[in-house]
Amino acid sequence: MKKIPYKTYLTEDEMPRQWYNIRADMKEQHAPLLNPGTLEPLTTEELYPIFCEQLCKQEMDTSTRYVDIPDEVLDFYKMFRPSPLIRAYNLEKALATPAKIYYKFEGNNTSGSHKLNAAAAMAYYAKEQGITSFTTETGAGQWGTALALACSHFGLDLTVFMVKTSFEQKPFRKAVIETYGANIIPSPSTTTEVGKAILEQNPDTGGSLGCAISEAIEQSMKQENTRYALGSVLNQVLLHQSIIGLESKIAMEKLGEYPDVIVGCAGGGSNLGGLMAPFMQDKLTGKANPRIVAVEPSSCPSLTRGKYAYDFCDTGKITPLAKMYTLGSGFMPSPNHAGGLRYHGMSPIVSKLYHDGYMEAVSVDQTTVFDAAVKFAQIEQILPAPESSHAIYGAIREALKCKETGEEKTILFGLTGTGYFDMNAYDQYNKKAMNDYIPTDADLQRGFDSLPNAE
Amino acid sequence: MKKIPYKTYLTEDEMPRQWYNIRADMKEQHAPLLNPGTLEPLTTEELYPIFCEQLCKQEMDTSTRYVDIPDEVLDFYKMFRPSPLIRAYNLEKALATPAKIYYKFEGNNTSGSHKLNAAAAMAYYAKEQGITSFTTETGAGQWGTALALACSHFGLDLTVFMVKTSFEQKPFRKAVIETYGANIIPSPSTTTEVGKAILEQNPDTGGSLGCAISEAIEQSMKQENTRYALGSVLNQVLLHQSIIGLESKIAMEKLGEYPDVIVGCAGGGSNLGGLMAPFMQDKLTGKANPRIVAVEPSSCPSLTRGKYAYDFCDTGKITPLAKMYTLGSGFMPSPNHAGGLRYHGMSPIVSKLYHDGYMEAVSVDQTTVFDAAVKFAQIEQILPAPESSHAIYGAIREALKCKETGEEKTILFGLTGTGYFDMNAYDQYNKKAMNDYIPTDADLQRGFDSLPNAE
Repeated sequence: MKKIPYKTYLTEDEMPRQWYNIRADMKEQHAPLLNPGTLEPLTTEELYPIFCEQLCKQEMDTSTRYVDIPDEVLDFYKMFRPSPLIRAYNLEKALATPAKIYYKFEGNNTSGSHKLNAAAAMAYYAKEQGITSFTTETGAGQWGTALALACSHFGLDLTVFMVKTSFEQKPFRKAVIETYGANIIPSPSTTTEVGKAILEQNPDTGGSLGCAISEAIEQSMKQENTRYALGSVLNQVLLHQSIIGLESKIAMEKLGEYPDVIVGCAGGGSNLGGLMAPFMQDKLTGKANPRIVAVEPSSCPSLTRGKYAYDFCDTGKITPLAKMYTLGSGFMPSPNHAGGLRYHGMSPIVSKLYHDGYMEAVSVDQTTVFDAAVKFAQIEQILPAPESSHAIYGAIREALKCKETGEEKTILFGLTGTGYFDMNAYDQYNKKAMNDYIPTDADLQRGFDSLPNAE
Repeated sequence: MKKIPYKTYLTEDEMPRQWYNIRADMKEQHAPLLNPGTLEPLTTEELYPIFCEQLCKQEMDTSTRYVDIPDEVLDFYKMFRPSPLIRAYNLEKALATPAKIYYKFEGNNTSGSHKLNAAAAMAYYAKEQGITSFTTETGAGQWGTALALACSHFGLDLTVFMVKTSFEQKPFRKAVIETYGANIIPSPSTTTEVGKAILEQNPDTGGSLGCAISEAIEQSMKQENTRYALGSVLNQVLLHQSIIGLESKIAMEKLGEYPDVIVGCAGGGSNLGGLMAPFMQDKLTGKANPRIVAVEPSSCPSLTRGKYAYDFCDTGKITPLAKMYTLGSGFMPSPNHAGGLRYHGMSPIVSKLYHDGYMEAVSVDQTTVFDAAVKFAQIEQILPAPESSHAIYGAIREALKCKETGEEKTILFGLTGTGYFDMNAYDQYNKKAMNDYIPTDADLQRGFDSLPNAE
């Protein structure tokens, strides 16, 4: 038998030329987005002021199974894709597990993560429509950087609202984003009305993705010929991110492999939704039945401790309402270093599939995640982002279960990005000065109290 | 004709299994290393207290053309190699040049550069000999990180002396190196006698590679079962780094290409020496005649303004003497951000080949380098290290010459690493607060005055 290489790269010819829309195979669709004013289902046209038209159509499309990737986006992808599928031989050996561990590594680009997959698509469609600038939010900074890269390539202006805690923890993100010509503002800010209101209520807040989203949307409404871009949660994002899973599946097929368990970190659901997409298709169509496991931080546990309910996607309550697992848009997550997972809600698609029993979810404390991150860094020689390290923890957990049972399972996890801009967090961990933040039931109740009345 | 892909990866089976020793094909060898006490040619055995034995043998070997890469090192390489050979389609288009531009990108590993190629070999050989710890110096931090990764993998302790200027400009390098279990000390330090002496003479110095080398060697002598490791300059390093050129040549052959011009940044010569190795072989054996261009900072211009003379490899004057292009071990380079190029000397092999007319050299100012870096980052979507950006500048210069003459030359350059830890420098550049530092003739004379009397 031919030995499986450490790294498998598809050739350009083998790269997928279409994204996969998971909704085309879902038995039941998630509940529709609601207009926050009327509480009526939102029409595609009502979304046009927020997103560019092609993206609005993708957001609402429940039937087109495969969507052609535009040539310009494919060319952009070729600068940083295909990403490698890596066999974690050294991790397997270190764990002494009979399991085979694979990971899809999305960190080898300047955004440091998978976020560039969706950013490229959004910038392209906006450019096509004649839009001249974007506003967006960013948590950990990967999404803001990714959109800055894509906007630089397609010639769009960009303003990024970065969650203040992350902005302060990661001073150099600013320089990267500015190098790509974008403007970056810590959120909450006094630039927007919603920012001012949040600061008035809570002057010392470190911000949250929910706040930054509100500010970015408000700002996009004020600027001419501008649209808002969101790097997670949305159906369009899961569509674009399906490239991760599609490449993984083709690469595994070439190796004669198929995963028994798929593990992804979950904040808004962009990475997990993309990684699992074609495997979920197999599950939905009865072709295969892999387990799919979401790993989220115990500091922001939307799947494991949230409610499945209609909620705003932002803290300022200006977005449409989505039915999703949520901690309430008023939930203010504590400053966990995995800024990309510090979001009160969860992708409606991921939420629906979880609700319908197609997926599992676990939550994990920050120090436990960094235990896994440092172990992985030393063994596999890649320094992972804190977000990604949730998936590493989940994969190790599965591999250790196999060690107990002796099962030779095949595990696939998503290594979404690198931690080069998270060294403050690693430094805290190395100094044993890192804390866990687990919300009490009372903390959660305060978030739930912010939920709107909508069914 | 089949379109050449953006990125070409060798398969594991295509990866080189041997390093190439350029000295086996040199018509004349560089002058021997001299014992600094006796000024007599150094024997292999005299090097044993400094480097582990296998590395001493490689250092002195002028005849073995191909050296087998040990299986353990090959396995380590497979975690981050092969590196991609990238066709810079977007850069070509932006420059409107008829030239074809290729670059070998060595930045996709946690050290952020090519340095891991040599670090892996050194750690392996040391481990084989039963050595338990290393000391080393690092300028920009890539070498220190690389050796920390390799020592973590092979189970060795490590102490890194980091040039103080870089240590302060790059606070997060410390956290990365510590995450891999190594100890890091800003140099000059009060840990060593040589550090104390340098600080006494010049308390405000930002340090230099030459100082840090002295400290690391002194420290290795004080510790039991410890050897010193150097990431550039040495013949052994050029041997290990030949993997860069060998992979590049195989990949270009697969594409039916051969470079007319090869461009590399030059500090101590590790990257350029490795990239050019098999092409220089063609030149030395008369098979082909590509131009080979070294690009160095005008702040530390050893090839373009230095003397070809015997000199110490360190500032504390404790190393053997090497005949090389040098600014004098007493030359104290100003704080140019390309810390990896802030070295007074140059690889004896590169020096000899340059002296014998096989290579060209140019120097360039820091702001001009950052002009090229930012342009490249925006166009090719990879944020380059300042060191690497010297080669980008050189390649763009060649491509623009082709634009003038209409020649369709094939240019290959080495993109040695990423700039994620250089954001202070990018920030200065973005704020237009970056300075150029060009030594005056009087500055250079002070350096030359420190040269020893040896022929």
